[in-house]
Amino acid sequence: MSVTAAKGFTAAGIAAGIKENGNPDLALVVNTGPRRAAAGVFTSNRVKAAPVLWSEQVLKSGELAAVVLNSGGANACTGPKGFQDTHATAEKVAEVLGVGAGEVAVASTGLIGVLLPMDKLLPGVEQAAEALSEHGGEKAAIAIKTTDSVHKTSVVTKDGWTVGGMAKGAGMLAPGLATMLVVLTTDADVESDVLDRALRAATRTTFDRVDSDGCMSTNDTVLLLASGACGVTPEYEEFAEAVRAVCDDLGQQLIRDAEGASKDIKIEVVNAATEDDAVEVGRSIARNNLLKCAIHGEDPNWGRVLSAIGTTRAAFEPDRLNVAINGVWVCKNGGVGEDRDKVDMRYREVHIVADLAAGSQTATIWTNDLTADYVHENSAYSS
Amino acid sequence: MSVTAAKGFTAAGIAAGIKENGNPDLALVVNTGPRRAAAGVFTSNRVKAAPVLWSEQVLKSGELAAVVLNSGGANACTGPKGFQDTHATAEKVAEVLGVGAGEVAVASTGLIGVLLPMDKLLPGVEQAAEALSEHGGEKAAIAIKTTDSVHKTSVVTKDGWTVGGMAKGAGMLAPGLATMLVVLTTDADVESDVLDRALRAATRTTFDRVDSDGCMSTNDTVLLLASGACGVTPEYEEFAEAVRAVCDDLGQQLIRDAEGASKDIKIEVVNAATEDDAVEVGRSIARNNLLKCAIHGEDPNWGRVLSAIGTTRAAFEPDRLNVAINGVWVCKNGGVGEDRDKVDMRYREVHIVADLAAGSQTATIWTNDLTADYVHENSAYSS
Repeated sequence: MSVTAAKGFTAAGIAAGIKENGNPDLALVVNTGPRRAAAGVFTSNRVKAAPVLWSEQVLKSGELAAVVLNSGGANACTGPKGFQDTHATAEKVAEVLGVGAGEVAVASTGLIGVLLPMDKLLPGVEQAAEALSEHGGEKAAIAIKTTDSVHKTSVVTKDGWTVGGMAKGAGMLAPGLATMLVVLTTDADVESDVLDRALRAATRTTFDRVDSDGCMSTNDTVLLLASGACGVTPEYEEFAEAVRAVCDDLGQQLIRDAEGASKDIKIEVVNAATEDDAVEVGRSIARNNLLKCAIHGEDPNWGRVLSAIGTTRAAFEPDRLNVAINGVWVCKNGGVGEDRDKVDMRYREVHIVADLAAGSQTATIWTNDLTADYVHENSAYSS
Repeated sequence: MSVTAAKGFTAAGIAAGIKENGNPDLALVVNTGPRRAAAGVFTSNRVKAAPVLWSEQVLKSGELAAVVLNSGGANACTGPKGFQDTHATAEKVAEVLGVGAGEVAVASTGLIGVLLPMDKLLPGVEQAAEALSEHGGEKAAIAIKTTDSVHKTSVVTKDGWTVGGMAKGAGMLAPGLATMLVVLTTDADVESDVLDRALRAATRTTFDRVDSDGCMSTNDTVLLLASGACGVTPEYEEFAEAVRAVCDDLGQQLIRDAEGASKDIKIEVVNAATEDDAVEVGRSIARNNLLKCAIHGEDPNWGRVLSAIGTTRAAFEPDRLNVAINGVWVCKNGGVGEDRDKVDMRYREVHIVADLAAGSQTATIWTNDLTADYVHENSAYSS
C-alpha cells in the first residue's frame, strides 16, 4: 500500500540499470491532486548531497507534484556536475509529467562520491512514468532499497482519510535523521504549513531518536505530500498523531532491519531535568561501542551505561543513578543493585532504563547492538 | 626500565590473587626521594572511580611518596564501600612504607561495579613492599595489564636526568584521556607546579588525542613523580619536551595494542581555523564506525570522511574540503579527486589528511579500525 494507500497518488518502481545487479533502483511518486501541498525535513549534516540541496529549495514553495528517488548512488560530494544531474533529473520528470521542475523533489541513496549514470537514469524516468499506478506503492518502496533486507511501508487510516508511507534505511542511522529516505502521503485536505508542523513534530520524537550507529548521512530526506483527494480536513491533533504513528512504525522497521544487528535496544531515559538532557544521555548510551558489544554478548554490563552517562553534560549525581536492564535494577544509587544473573537477555529486544533522578523528563532512543556482521557488511565492500 | 629508569624510585609487580587466573595484578611504585613532587591528570568522565576521587584529593598537596595500582577490578560504581576500600589500600601502603596515607595515590583497572577482594589485595600490598627493587619497573608494568597483549614502557634520557614511564590500556581509549593508567617518573629536581604544567601540556596533545573507540573510562589516571635524585633542574622547555616524548611514545603503544585492531589510523586535520576545530573534526572522523569498518576492509571510502566532517561545528565550506588517504588526494574541492584505486592500504598504518581549507591550525588524532575481533573481545566476556 505504502505511498498509494492515500487517494490522489500514483507510484512506480522500476530497474533503470543504475544498480549493476539489475535490481529495481528508481521510484516515482506523483501527487494527482487536487491539492499539492508538501513539507520536508532533511539531514542536518553540513555536507549535503545534491538532491538534498535541490529538494530543500523546491520545497520552499510548500508544493510538490512529484518525488523521484533513486538507489544505487547518493549523488553526494559530486560537485557542480552532481547538482546539474539532480536538476536534469527533475527536469526530465517535469517533462514527462507535464509539471514544472520546481515542483519535483529528488532523493538519492547509495555510495557517496560517484556520479550517477544519467544515460540510464533519464530513460528510467520515462519508464517509471509509464508504469505509474494507483497500486504502485509497493514497487516504489522496493526500488529505494540499498542494503535493506526488506522494504518498509506503513499506513494509518482514520475516519475518511489516510496517511501512508515508505522508507529505506539499514545503517548510518543517526541523529538529525538517519540515512533514510522516507515519503509519506495523505489524502487529507491539509495546507503545507500544517504538514510542516506535523512532520517536524513527528520526526523529532521518531526518526530523530533512531540511532543505529551514530553516523549521520548526507542524504536524509523525509517528505510528506497531501493530495486533499478525500476532501476531509482533520483536526490538527488527530492528523499529527497519525503522521507520528506512521513515522514511529517506519522508524521501528528501520531499527529492526539495521545492518548486521542481532538486538534492538530501547533506551529509556527517565527522571531527567530536561528533555534535552534525556536525549543527550540516551544518545551517549546508544553510541557506546563497548556497551553495544556487551549487549551483543548478552552481558548486562551496566558499568558501561554509567560510563556513557558520565560523559554527558546532563544534570545528575553519580551516586543517585539507577539502571535497569530488561526489568532488573542492576545498578542502584550509582552502585551494585539487583543480581545481574537475573537479567534475561535471550530475546531480540533489550530494554535499558536509565534513571537520572534529577527531574521528571523522559526520552526514548532506539539503537542496535554492534556485531561482527555489522563490521563485515561495512568493510567487505563500498556502500 | 619503565618507572625505575629514573633514579630515586623502586617498584614491584606481584600476583595478589585479585585476578582469578593468577596473573600479576598489583604494582607498587615508591619515590625514595630526596624530593617527592608529583602531578596528576584524571578522567573527565563525571562518573569517577573511587581511586580517582581519592588520588585527586591526595595530589592537591603536590606530593606523593608512592602509587599503588591494581588490575583485576576498577573499583568504579562501588559506592561508599568502594571508597573505603581505596582508603584502606592507601593506609596499608602508608603503614608498610612508613609514610602518610595522604601521600599515597591509588589507581585501579578492570571490571566496573565489582568490589575488590580486600582479603587478597591488602596482603598483596605487603608482598609488593617486600619485592620493591630499583629494577622492579618492568614487573610493575606487567602487573597493571588487563586485556593488554604487551606491557608498555618508555624512557627518555637527557643530560644527567631521565623521564621514564609505564602505561596500560587496550580499549575504551577516548578523549579527556583513554582507559589508561600511566605512571611517569623523573629524577630531575622539579617542583610540583612545573610537573603539573609539563604533564598537562603533554597529555593534551598525546593521550588526549588517542581515540580508539570513543569510550571514556571512569578510571583514567596519569601521574608524574619527581624524586630529584639526579640533582639536576632542567630548563622547562627541555623537560616538558621529554615528558611529551614519553607520553607520545606510550600513547602510540596504546593504539598499536588496541583491542582487535588491524589498522592504526593517523588522522591529520590541516588548515583548520582553530586548533579546537581541528581536534573536533579529527575526533568526529575517528569515531565514525562506518569509516572504521571501511578502513578495516582496506576501502579508501572518503565519502565517509566528508560525512563525518559534516557533523561538526568547525569552520569549513563543503566544496573546499580535500581528503588524502595514504598520500592520494581522493577528494578535491568536496568532490571526486585522484583515482581511489591508487591508494595502497596493505600496511597496518593508515594516514588520513583532512584539509579544511579554512585557516592554518592543525591537530592529529590516532584511532584504530573497527573489526570483528573488537566485537568479539568486548562481547564474549565482561571487561
